[in-house]
Amino acid sequence: MSSEAEAPPPEQPKVSKKAAKKEEAKLEKLRRRLEASSAVAGAAPDEEDPLAGNYGEVPLPELQSKEEVREPYTAIGALAEEMKDETVVVRGRAQTIRAVGKKMAFVVVREKGFTVQCVVTEKEGLVSRQMVKFVASLNRESIVDVHGSLTVPSSPIKGATQQVEIQVSKIYCVNKALPTLPINLEDAARSEAEIEKALQAGEQLVRVNQDTRLNFRVLDIRTPANQGIFRIQSQVGNIFRQFLLSEDFIEIHTPKLIAGSSEGGSAVFKLDYKGRPACLAQSPQLHKQMAICGDFGRVFEIGPVFRAEDSFTHRHLCEFTGLDVEMEIKKHYSEVMDIVDQLFVKMFDSLNASCKKELEAVGRQYPFEPLKYLRKTLRLTFQEGVQMLKDAGIEIDPFGDLSTEVERKLGQLVLEKYGTEFYILHRYPFAVRPFYTMPCYDDPAYSNSFDVFIRGEEIISGAQRVHVPELLTKQAEAKGIDVKTIETYIDSFRYGAPPHGGFGVGLERVVMLFCGLNNIRKTSLFPRDPLRISP
Amino acid sequence: MSSEAEAPPPEQPKVSKKAAKKEEAKLEKLRRRLEASSAVAGAAPDEEDPLAGNYGEVPLPELQSKEEVREPYTAIGALAEEMKDETVVVRGRAQTIRAVGKKMAFVVVREKGFTVQCVVTEKEGLVSRQMVKFVASLNRESIVDVHGSLTVPSSPIKGATQQVEIQVSKIYCVNKALPTLPINLEDAARSEAEIEKALQAGEQLVRVNQDTRLNFRVLDIRTPANQGIFRIQSQVGNIFRQFLLSEDFIEIHTPKLIAGSSEGGSAVFKLDYKGRPACLAQSPQLHKQMAICGDFGRVFEIGPVFRAEDSFTHRHLCEFTGLDVEMEIKKHYSEVMDIVDQLFVKMFDSLNASCKKELEAVGRQYPFEPLKYLRKTLRLTFQEGVQMLKDAGIEIDPFGDLSTEVERKLGQLVLEKYGTEFYILHRYPFAVRPFYTMPCYDDPAYSNSFDVFIRGEEIISGAQRVHVPELLTKQAEAKGIDVKTIETYIDSFRYGAPPHGGFGVGLERVVMLFCGLNNIRKTSLFPRDPLRISP
Repeated sequence: MSSEAEAPPPEQPKVSKKAAKKEEAKLEKLRRRLEASSAVAGAAPDEEDPLAGNYGEVPLPELQSKEEVREPYTAIGALAEEMKDETVVVRGRAQTIRAVGKKMAFVVVREKGFTVQCVVTEKEGLVSRQMVKFVASLNRESIVDVHGSLTVPSSPIKGATQQVEIQVSKIYCVNKALPTLPINLEDAARSEAEIEKALQAGEQLVRVNQDTRLNFRVLDIRTPANQGIFRIQSQVGNIFRQFLLSEDFIEIHTPKLIAGSSEGGSAVFKLDYKGRPACLAQSPQLHKQMAICGDFGRVFEIGPVFRAEDSFTHRHLCEFTGLDVEMEIKKHYSEVMDIVDQLFVKMFDSLNASCKKELEAVGRQYPFEPLKYLRKTLRLTFQEGVQMLKDAGIEIDPFGDLSTEVERKLGQLVLEKYGTEFYILHRYPFAVRPFYTMPCYDDPAYSNSFDVFIRGEEIISGAQRVHVPELLTKQAEAKGIDVKTIETYIDSFRYGAPPHGGFGVGLERVVMLFCGLNNIRKTSLFPRDPLRISP
Repeated sequence: MSSEAEAPPPEQPKVSKKAAKKEEAKLEKLRRRLEASSAVAGAAPDEEDPLAGNYGEVPLPELQSKEEVREPYTAIGALAEEMKDETVVVRGRAQTIRAVGKKMAFVVVREKGFTVQCVVTEKEGLVSRQMVKFVASLNRESIVDVHGSLTVPSSPIKGATQQVEIQVSKIYCVNKALPTLPINLEDAARSEAEIEKALQAGEQLVRVNQDTRLNFRVLDIRTPANQGIFRIQSQVGNIFRQFLLSEDFIEIHTPKLIAGSSEGGSAVFKLDYKGRPACLAQSPQLHKQMAICGDFGRVFEIGPVFRAEDSFTHRHLCEFTGLDVEMEIKKHYSEVMDIVDQLFVKMFDSLNASCKKELEAVGRQYPFEPLKYLRKTLRLTFQEGVQMLKDAGIEIDPFGDLSTEVERKLGQLVLEKYGTEFYILHRYPFAVRPFYTMPCYDDPAYSNSFDVFIRGEEIISGAQRVHVPELLTKQAEAKGIDVKTIETYIDSFRYGAPPHGGFGVGLERVVMLFCGLNNIRKTSLFPRDPLRISP
């Protein structure tokens, strides 16, 4: 049976033996043709060369799992001076190729952001002139297998991350890249500063714009900065999970396909579900609360969140990865803020410790200052924030929301006064929060809610939720919601509901703001915005 | 600014101070009314009782984060005989309530599947008769706070998991459940065997059917078996990730919104994306391969997968959680099978070791035999499988796919011959695999692909992929795919592509088959099938 887990083949008619044989014959023909063409292309570039077996293009059958061997490849990032004189095999990309006359060529080979310089020198009985020619004619970004011994040059190597060279004895092209690429990696990896500096020296360097990058994302994500960004992103998810699991949370998966057209109004993606109206979940809010009503105590989810908003900002996407948390509250919503505090201090500490190389790689292309944060996260009330702004001459509506600009200003004030770029603002005005937010016990104009900021931008929103069905109904009505459309949700609280609260974080925003990047498209692998739905 | 991470409030007009005050007044009124009603309902059930402060319903303001205290609650699962005579506070659900005359009542309180018996006995100056009455009148599944001291009864307690009793000094109802629930937890937690046994004794016990369970999932997931299932599910995801991270994989998040109507034909959910046709990803196949072409080397993803198929089987869902892996291959697709082998043996070992209680809880309601698996996972070729079937008198098309029934039969044969219920079948006929599957080097009628089975059912599908754009195009055409619709995908391999392969697993299937359950709806928190899109 074809798997449920893999994409089903687009057409999968039951095939008869006869059809299968026909298919087989057709494929055999194709295979022969491909083999022939690859042989022509360079498997034996010069039949006159007795050393022809030491280089060339690897023919296809060799790459079709012909031999079940575990060849001992060495990771390029692992190559070190201590390995001097050892013979190694590496696989990577031919990043730059440079011929020096007809007897010598240099290839910088890259793997996962690490690079090593490989030297091919004509040597009787070992390296032929044809081999040097073959190497010199390699297309950039082609995948190569390089065999050779390690040497340590007397002066530092500038063009590669590893401080050893490979003296090549064999080199094969495993897969050939197009001779002309839509983006040059060199260009894509260049910082603004380099471009500016060159410009001052009268040289115009190529600047790859964001759209071109995203159109050819497969090339773009090969830059050291991008390799760093997505390794950091992977770590953020990992730390998030490990911390919460250690605090007795369990991971859940809630449905993204939701009946009806949801509470979200126009910002929702609608679709047809087997003849019924459905939409994509704008957050796991309802279901994570139901999990709490279902006795899981503390839950979290990492999953896609869909927003059909027409936001053309540096920080909005139509699809992003939500990190969601929901938990029982014993007495006070500060229990939720405690989790935020501990989780993020732990996360920042871990990133700084375990992602040094990645952060450096990001910083080389997009310079940024390390995030300033306190051991115990600062908590200010919304009212205190309003007062700080007032003291700085900025008057805002004390019961309204903060604009992006005001948030940024407040971030500056907080940094000046408290020395932190990471803080919690709580007791938001009730009027600017969702209907399911618990109002404050002492003043219903405020709510048991909070936002969390990094470098003046909001990344987390959380609150105590209303767990009492009657109050929930009243608040929904007061906010103009048709209660009938959220009846299942409200009913979830009729079978005994513990007080609870939680928060949601955007993964891409955390990475963007931790690294001081200027656009969320830089931290989404294949971003989706109102204008972009590919690749 | 309202967060991107939380569901936006359905209506969020900018409010003026005046409107905010009006809102405030309205809410204040509501709050007073609710307070009044809760007072009547039982905050002080009998004003004549001088001990009235020791019990009653907790009024709403108390549950609105009135006091920022960290009250030392003890988890019910942590209550043990060693704690004898200690005073504890627990929060949980009143699972069963039983009055003995007017002077005594028993409440079994449950938290996360653990239960403790609480005893309320009239005692002068400490526990009033009114308090006993209050307890006796509690609705099942209500949330209660219980204060009391621990005693160890002389004979074992049958009706609770913890072998201590709480002698109650105070008890408060935190949140009241409806007096009549749509499902009784007792009924929902009952095994088939109990029902049968009672029937033989002439007693007809309630059997809660699957649909009723799913309609009231918030109640259903409170049963010990369900608490176990979803804790096991959380662990499966955790082990999957931790193993792969330790093997140098990175976690990625690929888009679920895909341009066009995808390669999937009718089994795809279509939607409108800002005026353009789009669909929901049926797997992260294309994007995880692009991540490999983008130099990440080894990647995995855990995320929702959408299939609009009309499959009404015990093992298909319209939305499930995919565990996807993709990795560079140096020489042979068995490198991918090595990862499957190590990952799953590790997973089964870990589950058996760390989820003992959960597995027992599942087994009590749905009895099953522990999974039989080998230290090194058995690998058979498809041809060997066909031969085993033939030897057992079952003739099948050697180039066709296996039916669910034949898979099950083969599972039996493998168990008998090799003593394992977990094995890999590889070298599938090319004709039954997707167009992007690499054919075998020595026989294009077969492919470098595999399926993995647990208890005779397929859970994993994997393969080496075609990384050569020319061959990919040819194979797509041969399978009748309009190559224009997959051009971006094919282009990804033109900039240098390493040989690679991977696999996909359905999380719900792993849990279902590991626990020997008979329906995938039991292992999806809020399942989606052709007939169900709520709750």
